[in-house]
Formats: sequence, structure tokens, C-alpha cells
Amino acid sequence: MTDLHPGSVVGVLGGMGPLATADFFSKVIAATPAGNDADHVPLLIHSDPRIPSRPAAILQGGPSPLPALLAARDRLIAAGAVALVMPCNTAHHWHAQLQARCPVPFLSIVDAACQEVTSEVARGATVGIIATQATLAARLFDQQLAQWGCTVLQPDDQTLQQVVLPAIAGVKAGDVAHSGLPLQQAVQALLDRGASRVILACTEVPVALDAIASPVRAHCVDTTAALARACVAWWQQYSRVT
Amino acid sequence: MTDLHPGSVVGVLGGMGPLATADFFSKVIAATPAGNDADHVPLLIHSDPRIPSRPAAILQGGPSPLPALLAARDRLIAAGAVALVMPCNTAHHWHAQLQARCPVPFLSIVDAACQEVTSEVARGATVGIIATQATLAARLFDQQLAQWGCTVLQPDDQTLQQVVLPAIAGVKAGDVAHSGLPLQQAVQALLDRGASRVILACTEVPVALDAIASPVRAHCVDTTAALARACVAWWQQYSRVT
Repeated sequence: MTDLHPGSVVGVLGGMGPLATADFFSKVIAATPAGNDADHVPLLIHSDPRIPSRPAAILQGGPSPLPALLAARDRLIAAGAVALVMPCNTAHHWHAQLQARCPVPFLSIVDAACQEVTSEVARGATVGIIATQATLAARLFDQQLAQWGCTVLQPDDQTLQQVVLPAIAGVKAGDVAHSGLPLQQAVQALLDRGASRVILACTEVPVALDAIASPVRAHCVDTTAALARACVAWWQQYSRVT
Repeated sequence: MTDLHPGSVVGVLGGMGPLATADFFSKVIAATPAGNDADHVPLLIHSDPRIPSRPAAILQGGPSPLPALLAARDRLIAAGAVALVMPCNTAHHWHAQLQARCPVPFLSIVDAACQEVTSEVARGATVGIIATQATLAARLFDQQLAQWGCTVLQPDDQTLQQVVLPAIAGVKAGDVAHSGLPLQQAVQALLDRGASRVILACTEVPVALDAIASPVRAHCVDTTAALARACVAWWQQYSRVT
């Protein structure tokens, strides 16, 4: 094999779903202060839609996606990844296992988003969260938000089942256009209940809200964009040092 | 290395530029008749902005990007790519060398676009082309269009230098918003001169025209979308057979 251009890359465990991964890619580019092609972060994006369902594994005891995630991780490392990211909140249920014995940094979308939240709201603020039932059940954000003294609001069960989950499924099925307004209503309901920020803790959600240029976006923390910014910051630090 | 989820992927030689590669990714998703994540084409996208300038190599004798392209190709094949695509027209100057001794199919953006052109225009039609100076100099589209008896129109030199090339550079620098209108004018000028279709033979161009929802798009053949459709068709055939 030729290897005249060995080049380090940031590896992306994606495809959960593909549109959210494409959105992450675009947000890395947008977060990069670049004057030309060469200023951008080199990425190796593994968009694999065959990774077993994360919600089914967490909620229904379905097959674990961990073996597929570990295989994707190792494939990216073997291909030259010097750091890893995974633009899917629910999959972060397995982040500790993916980080264990991982020879390169594996940036967390939860850490990236919580850093943005705590820089934007006062200690003890009320914060909303829009996520899959599985992400909520896995309590991925609870610990870090509790440390900041936050009260966490989530959609009531009816809104979750009848509005949020169908809209997320809609984005995964490619129907972005009809998913924006329902999700906007779900965000607005949390703002009305007193949330000072709403965390879009499912990477399908900002895709749908961006598609309608929703005004509620100004009150949201976009986990995809937070991970993109963390990825660009990591790369800039890495490429300065090496 | 774990390999419980070996999964074939289509490899994407990208980063030329990154935004065009992200656009290709989105267009593959849009071209896929998918009801859920699992119906999508698995992709491994190498977005490497460090590949030496293609125009500089073709027009000014700058360093060849071929070694870097071969390294990216081989990296993707080693990581499991069962077919390859490259969403950059200018880089197809080296397509024959990339295809040579390549153990997997390397779909051509020129072939994909010319198939769409010849299915949409009558034999002997006049066809416009918007491209970098390097793509025009490399005459990538001439042979296939000549076989269909087409007369090919390209922007006059002043439009190329003062409108098209700065707009393409604008997209590469992330300034999509200001690149759409100039490129729309360049397309319109070719339509006014009698072109029945205009080939957007630089993958930055549809990004800018899509951003302003340009009405001229209806008269254009989008090379990025053509390659995306060819990629989805190839994968569907492959996954039926294997």
C-alpha cells in the first residue's frame, strides 16, 4: 500500500443516523476558521447505518451495538485516527466502554454540551432536555447538570411519545420538513415551563430545527455543534503541538 | 483489533473541498429510498484538505496530488471500501491512474454526469459547462459530450476569471452566501447563449446555487448529485448480489 501521505485524521463514528452525521460534518466545517481547503480538520467519517439500534438495546434488551461500535472504533484507529468523536447522544451510553483501552482520545458529546451549558447558564438554573427515551433512561446528562445545581426538565410523557419520538423517527426516515414544527413546540413547552436553555440531546433534533430556521434555536444548546466545536479545538491544539 | 462488524463500505476520497464533500454526503442520503437508518449506504469518507492543489498541478506545474490521492485510495481500501468515489471534478484528471491496478470499482463523476446529460438532451444539443480553469484545460468532459454530438459552451474568459473562479474560491473559504448569485449569472449567460443544459462540473458550484435556491438549478446537471445517484445505484446492486 502507498503511504506517501500518512496524515492524521479525526475519526467519526457515525451513521446514527446518517443525516445527523452529515450535519456534524457541516458543523465542523462551519466551526473552522478556514480561508481555503487546507485549513480544515481532516476527518475520516465512518457512516455505518448497520449499527444495531441503541434505543432497542437500552429499553428492550435488544442486541448490543457495542461490538459494532468497537469494530468501527478500531477500524478508524487502524486507518490513522488520532482522536475519535461520535455524533449520537444515545450511543454515549457505551462511551465509557469505548474509551476503555482506547489508545487515542475519545471526545464525549455529553462533556462538550455540558461545558456549553455551564458557560451559558447560572448555577442552579433550570435546563430543559430533548432526547430519545433511551438517552433519558440512560441519564447521560444528569450527573454533570446536577453538579452545576441544575433542575432538569424533560418533555412530559405524552409529548415525548406523541411529538418528540415521531419527529426524530421522521428525520431518520428523511422527512426533515415535517419534523421541525413539532420539535419546536416541544422546545417551546420546556421554555414556557421555565427552562433558561434547552439541550438538543439527540443529533436528529437540530437537523429538523435548522431546516425551519426555528427561532427557538437561540435558546438551545446544540449537542452536535458543541461536539463539532470541541473537535475543531482539539485538532487545533493537536496540530500546533505536533 | 475487533472485527465483529466487518461491513463493506463505499469509500469517498474527499476534502476537495470539505463543503463539497459534505454536500455529496447529504446528496447520497437524499438519493437513498430509506425508511430508517439501516436502509442507507454505508460510507467511509476521507475528508482530507491537505491533498495538494489540483489546479496548481494542472495549470502551473505544482506538486502532483496523485501520491496523496493514491494513499487515500489505499487507506480506504485497506479499511474495507468495496467501491470508491471522488466528489471533485478537477481531481478526475488523475482518474485513470487511480483506477489502474485498483482492486475495486472507482466510479467516475464524469461518467455519472455525462450519463445524465445524454439522457436529458437530444443528440447534437448545445451544453454549457461551469468548471475550474483546470477542469476545462484537462478537457475531462469533451470526449463523452463529443460522442453525443454536443456543442460545448463555456464561460468567456472574463466571466471565468472575474466571476466563476472567485465564487468557487468563496465556497472553499466558507462564504457560500455570496457565491450563489455570481454563479447563477454565469449559468444564465450560458443558457442565454443557447445551452439546453449547464453541467455544474465543479462540486463547489451546486453548494452555492442550492444555498440561494437558485431557479437556474432546474436547467443544470449537478455532477455531485449525479455521482451520489450512481453511488446509491451501485450499492443497491452490490447489496442485492452479496
